[in-house]
Amino acid sequence: MSNSYDSLFEPIELGPVEIPNRVYQPPHGNAYGLGDQQTAFRAEKAKGGFGLIIQEYSKIHESTDVTPVEPGFLHTDETIEPQREMVEAVHDHGSKLFVELWHGGLTASNYDSRQPPLSSSQTPSGNYYTPKEMEHEDIQEIVEAFATAADRARRAGYDGVELHAAHGYLISQFLSPFYNDRDDEYGGSLENRMRFFEEVIDSVDDAISDDMAFGARFTIDERVEGGLRADGEGLEIVERIGDDLDFWDLDIGVKQSIDDMIGPSRLHSKNYQMEFIEEATEVLDVPVGGTGRITDPRDAERLLEAGAVDMIGMARQSIADPHWPKKAREGRVDQIRECIGCNICVSQSRQGIPLICTQNPTVGEEQQWGPEEYEQVDEPKGVLVVGGGPAGTEFARVAGERGHIVHLNEKERELGGRVNFEGSLPGLSEWKRVRDWRETELDRLDVAVHTGSRAEMEYDDVRTYGAEIVVIATGGHWSEKGVTSGTHKPVPGWDQDHVLTPAEAVDADLSDERVVIFDEEGYNVSAGVTQTLADDNDLTFVTPRTSAFQETLHTFERKTIYSDLYSAGVEFVPDHTLTQVDDGSVTATNVYSNEETMFDADYVVFTTMRKSDDDLYRELKANEETLTAETEIEEIHAIGDCVSPRRIADAVYHGHELGRKT
Amino acid sequence: MSNSYDSLFEPIELGPVEIPNRVYQPPHGNAYGLGDQQTAFRAEKAKGGFGLIIQEYSKIHESTDVTPVEPGFLHTDETIEPQREMVEAVHDHGSKLFVELWHGGLTASNYDSRQPPLSSSQTPSGNYYTPKEMEHEDIQEIVEAFATAADRARRAGYDGVELHAAHGYLISQFLSPFYNDRDDEYGGSLENRMRFFEEVIDSVDDAISDDMAFGARFTIDERVEGGLRADGEGLEIVERIGDDLDFWDLDIGVKQSIDDMIGPSRLHSKNYQMEFIEEATEVLDVPVGGTGRITDPRDAERLLEAGAVDMIGMARQSIADPHWPKKAREGRVDQIRECIGCNICVSQSRQGIPLICTQNPTVGEEQQWGPEEYEQVDEPKGVLVVGGGPAGTEFARVAGERGHIVHLNEKERELGGRVNFEGSLPGLSEWKRVRDWRETELDRLDVAVHTGSRAEMEYDDVRTYGAEIVVIATGGHWSEKGVTSGTHKPVPGWDQDHVLTPAEAVDADLSDERVVIFDEEGYNVSAGVTQTLADDNDLTFVTPRTSAFQETLHTFERKTIYSDLYSAGVEFVPDHTLTQVDDGSVTATNVYSNEETMFDADYVVFTTMRKSDDDLYRELKANEETLTAETEIEEIHAIGDCVSPRRIADAVYHGHELGRKT
Ligand SMILES: Cc1cc2nc3c(=O)[nH]c(=O)nc-3n(C[C@H](O)[C@H](O)[C@H](O)COP(=O)(O)O)c2cc1C
Ligand SMILES: Cc1cc2nc3c(=O)[nH]c(=O)nc-3n(C[C@H](O)[C@H](O)[C@H](O)COP(=O)(O)O)c2cc1C
Ligand SMILES: Nc1ncnc2c1ncn2[C@@H]1O[C@H](COP(=O)(O)OP(=O)(O)O)[C@@H](O)[C@H]1O
Ligand SMILES: Nc1ncnc2c1ncn2[C@@H]1O[C@H](COP(=O)(O)OP(=O)(O)O)[C@@H](O)[C@H]1O
Ligand code: SF4
Ligand code: SF4
Repeated sequence: MSNSYDSLFEPIELGPVEIPNRVYQPPHGNAYGLGDQQTAFRAEKAKGGFGLIIQEYSKIHESTDVTPVEPGFLHTDETIEPQREMVEAVHDHGSKLFVELWHGGLTASNYDSRQPPLSSSQTPSGNYYTPKEMEHEDIQEIVEAFATAADRARRAGYDGVELHAAHGYLISQFLSPFYNDRDDEYGGSLENRMRFFEEVIDSVDDAISDDMAFGARFTIDERVEGGLRADGEGLEIVERIGDDLDFWDLDIGVKQSIDDMIGPSRLHSKNYQMEFIEEATEVLDVPVGGTGRITDPRDAERLLEAGAVDMIGMARQSIADPHWPKKAREGRVDQIRECIGCNICVSQSRQGIPLICTQNPTVGEEQQWGPEEYEQVDEPKGVLVVGGGPAGTEFARVAGERGHIVHLNEKERELGGRVNFEGSLPGLSEWKRVRDWRETELDRLDVAVHTGSRAEMEYDDVRTYGAEIVVIATGGHWSEKGVTSGTHKPVPGWDQDHVLTPAEAVDADLSDERVVIFDEEGYNVSAGVTQTLADDNDLTFVTPRTSAFQETLHTFERKTIYSDLYSAGVEFVPDHTLTQVDDGSVTATNVYSNEETMFDADYVVFTTMRKSDDDLYRELKANEETLTAETEIEEIHAIGDCVSPRRIADAVYHGHELGRKT
Repeated sequence: MSNSYDSLFEPIELGPVEIPNRVYQPPHGNAYGLGDQQTAFRAEKAKGGFGLIIQEYSKIHESTDVTPVEPGFLHTDETIEPQREMVEAVHDHGSKLFVELWHGGLTASNYDSRQPPLSSSQTPSGNYYTPKEMEHEDIQEIVEAFATAADRARRAGYDGVELHAAHGYLISQFLSPFYNDRDDEYGGSLENRMRFFEEVIDSVDDAISDDMAFGARFTIDERVEGGLRADGEGLEIVERIGDDLDFWDLDIGVKQSIDDMIGPSRLHSKNYQMEFIEEATEVLDVPVGGTGRITDPRDAERLLEAGAVDMIGMARQSIADPHWPKKAREGRVDQIRECIGCNICVSQSRQGIPLICTQNPTVGEEQQWGPEEYEQVDEPKGVLVVGGGPAGTEFARVAGERGHIVHLNEKERELGGRVNFEGSLPGLSEWKRVRDWRETELDRLDVAVHTGSRAEMEYDDVRTYGAEIVVIATGGHWSEKGVTSGTHKPVPGWDQDHVLTPAEAVDADLSDERVVIFDEEGYNVSAGVTQTLADDNDLTFVTPRTSAFQETLHTFERKTIYSDLYSAGVEFVPDHTLTQVDDGSVTATNVYSNEETMFDADYVVFTTMRKSDDDLYRELKANEETLTAETEIEEIHAIGDCVSPRRIADAVYHGHELGRKT
């Protein structure tokens, strides 16, 4: 296959606007608000070669309030100025910036603005409110608000606008029979359900200028029973409106099927949305963009050549590596930091916490750290890194970029640390990209990597190594005692052979056993261990939490985990804490009623909490004075899980941060 | 009993600072950030007579980040200026303003600042991170950060500071054996565990000026196994430190027992914390403040006279009625808007959504709406209100305050609407204060209230009533069809006699029946119906949500509901939707695995969603042109649940908002 990517870097016209290439960022929120951080974040993608960036969902009216989550804003005139700066910053790199006009309808609880939530009908919100069925005057007000917001976009200098007619938000709530239950001229027939969308199109068309592009993001397949389908009304809507718009940005999924919309790697393989979109590309005369776990330039080129889409959208990949297009064009494909599909990004931003990324620690930090720019040190130092997990490899890489002489010592045969275990759990193989990309880069940067038992560092090895800077990144381990936040105490009976750590449980290759898993993590390790054991064993999952795998609710992985495990017959016992481990059984106590229940258990697995492996660091620190006086050592640091066991993303960040400072 | 409240309005000295009376606001957050809204909110309480206001928990360092929840800030110099304005606004009314210095320790996930969470030990967080066990240099850094923040408080002009040594935050994490697991000089013996607190006291003492008061908020009883107790080390700590501080602000409960800390009325009756505090008041030479559902001036006076505390703290009551002290002093006790203990306030603010209040719709709106100030209308109008629930009574009250001639027509014999039903559910009787306060006020304002069947308004009644302004507040009803957000469809078989609404289920007085409750509300009505039926019947609770009563997690009511229901033997079936109702049984389908399960059911109750009763409004609006042309009617409005069924707080606000505009 050629390295030239002719299709990918061909310009394209979206109505009056020429986009320099076929690679765009579909709209994605980040909870950064408006201002310098937001501007720097989007500008970095332009710098990295994204031809088109479509900002984020931006509220057009005070009745679409999702506090504490912060969308983009176009509902007041004050929001214009900071966006003008962002437009200019993107233009400086030769790229175009559009914005997505959004009203959430019934999904906007309006807990801050206190206005009644609006929708086509009184569709249940799944929460303790029901929206107002919009009156005709409400419809008119919102149609006008779309136009007013579009006019603000024009005044901010945006090159185009995209209507948010997707994801089960307000326009979808009119278009889709899953939501729309009206019996007036805005409900019933497809023609009627399209009326609101068409009115919005008309009013926005009048509000923008002739040199602006105008398109829509549209969910062609809602992936819910009774919703729009790509082989039904979804396609029909696209056909009917057709080239009334300059372009279409198509995707799949609504709130109820969000695991299809922002598909985690656990559930969806690469390019997974294309099959739903390609027919629309065929029938439409105007350009179509599509997205969905596209991360490889070779795939992207092939999809364009095959005519599946006219433009390649990458939301998460543009977060994981904003310089993807540049690297592809320059033939540096192996330097691309591929997204692992973990959805930590969206799990934070959907809770109102500024976006981060597991693979890219510079996300949100562009003002201080260019992801591809490293300040060279004046005086290179000899740096010893102990531990080659996410923290150690990331630190070593950054220190290498900056010009230090770096040695990385890892006691296992492979780099990767916890990622080796976690990436081996069902559905998580792509998580190993955290290791692989860093391994490739360490090689490119000539960092000296030593692995295997001879690279295991003890106090004396560090003392005599000859390094000036010592960085300990020795990670952590799962507590063997089953301590939880409710009791802060070991589970009586923890010290028995049939009580296993997660790794032991996976390695043991158990079958036909009765296994009790006692969990408070609620995330990927407990899910992975349970999935590994579920098929061949009789599993009981006990947790003091209100339900299992709660962290994966936010990463949209829970539905797939749960459907696996329910089908495999796992028994879930929420609201219980383990109070005794005996031979062949355990006692679980209801944390509310204190009632005790016994469960059979040949094996018990604890996934409650992790602790740091910080003995080496603590010993070095205890002797810091002597060491700095008597050896070459000048500084001793600790990073990652050996300081505070957290997510992989946190370890990478911690390593990166120290690397920038060293 | 006297009306004079001699003790309550006696001044008191906290170290060098004289407080004009004994009524204070203990620190409480509101997620308003710093600025005009915050200033107006605190100033209103000073205006209403609170002698002392202790701002909110304010972060002293970047390592205590709880994004998206917004605490107060004292971690940078930029935060000083807006606080100076707040101090001045409070001083203008003759009151004093203190601030609470806070580090959350392990409860601060630092998802935005990305710093390692800190604690005395690697205590489990109950989430997917473990904090760092602070090194000596961390301890020193934080001890200094407390002093730097205290210095900023001084520069902002605060009259005093209060250390947050409570609630399981960082200082507690050293003090309490429930958290502290260290084996150095900061752990082990009580003396060692107190070392960090004492170091913070010393360093803050040096940082503040001589004319500032210095105290601590301290949890004297942690209400967890292994934690501090009021009859043990809790009291001992208070005794040992004693008058090293100018005052003590005592309370109970940590994160794990938060239902005791901010006790909902469902669980705790009035003045519930006093029994834990009074002994400390006795042994201490310096003043002690205490709190805990104090709402009645007569109780407050009595507690002071009995020496249980020296100062009366009211967090929620100061939200529900910031003019409580003024009204008490002026003998207007019946005008006090008593807090109902619903915890909607904290349920919003702890999720990062700006604080609201069920009883007081002006909370957070003080810049535009003084809770006790109403702009008089130039031209009084004849106003007809249809419906006397929270929305209708609040609107009528505000319109009455403003000088309109108001008629309120309610078809039932009593005012109150939904509050009559909800307030009759187990544990919720205090919710009727929503009705009672408004009823008293309507009487005081001479609003014409008509109740009973003759007050039922139909289209022609409204048309011929002679009113100029018509306000429809006819409320809503529970859907009889069991529609949920997952399916958007009625449950097949819904139209049978043994399928009941919540009110029917409660009225039916069932016993020895097998009842299935199908819920998506997750709040007070489903909890109340379940509690009502649980003792005498065989109950199965089916919900598509991941667990029952999730909304009550945020109001701290869930623990008490759950312990009741688990003890009563209710079977919880989460993750299931009802797919068929038959005679004597129902079918529930697992929403993940699609597996079907049958449950016996003599009766089925749906608490999935509410719909508006808006027929009257829709009919009036359809004829608006004729009505305004041919009758006195000039305007037709709808408010509350008949527009969008939401929380009681939302209906009250909606009514209030229209009242201010009319
Ligand atoms: C953090 C995050 C925020 C998102 N916000 C938006 C948004 O504001 N508007 C929108 O239409 N889609 C949004 N999406 C969906 C993406 O545009 C995209 O359709 C989805 O992530 C699948 O594409 P990908 O595999 O390239 O990431 C968001 C996705 C992520 C990961
Ligand atoms: C909305 C809200 C926020 C609170 N925030 C704080 C806080 O910032 N610091 C603190 O020490 N206590 C806080 N509390 C606890 C209160 O100070 C008080 O101890 C508790 O509400 C019981 O008192 P009450 O019954 O008078 O409300 C908060 C309480 C509420 C309702
Ligand atoms: N004494 C040691 N010498 C060399 N490597 C070590 C030593 N102790 C631990 N390691 C390695 O350190 C790595 C820590 O990685 P990990 O647990 O993923 O932590 P983090 O997420 O902080 O990078 C593991 O690969 C482990 O084998
Ligand atoms: N046609 C009517 N005439 C008079 N009162 C009505 C009529 N329809 C409904 N109501 C009353 O309106 C009130 C609505 O109250 P509620 O349901 O609590 O709504 P909200 O929370 O919006 O105030 C109920 O007390 C109900 O009896
Ligand atoms: S956080 Fe994970 S899913 Fe999101 S962009 Fe980064 S690597 Fe991809
Ligand atoms: S929201 Fe409820 S608990 Fe909070 S102050 Fe208001 S009435 Fe009291």
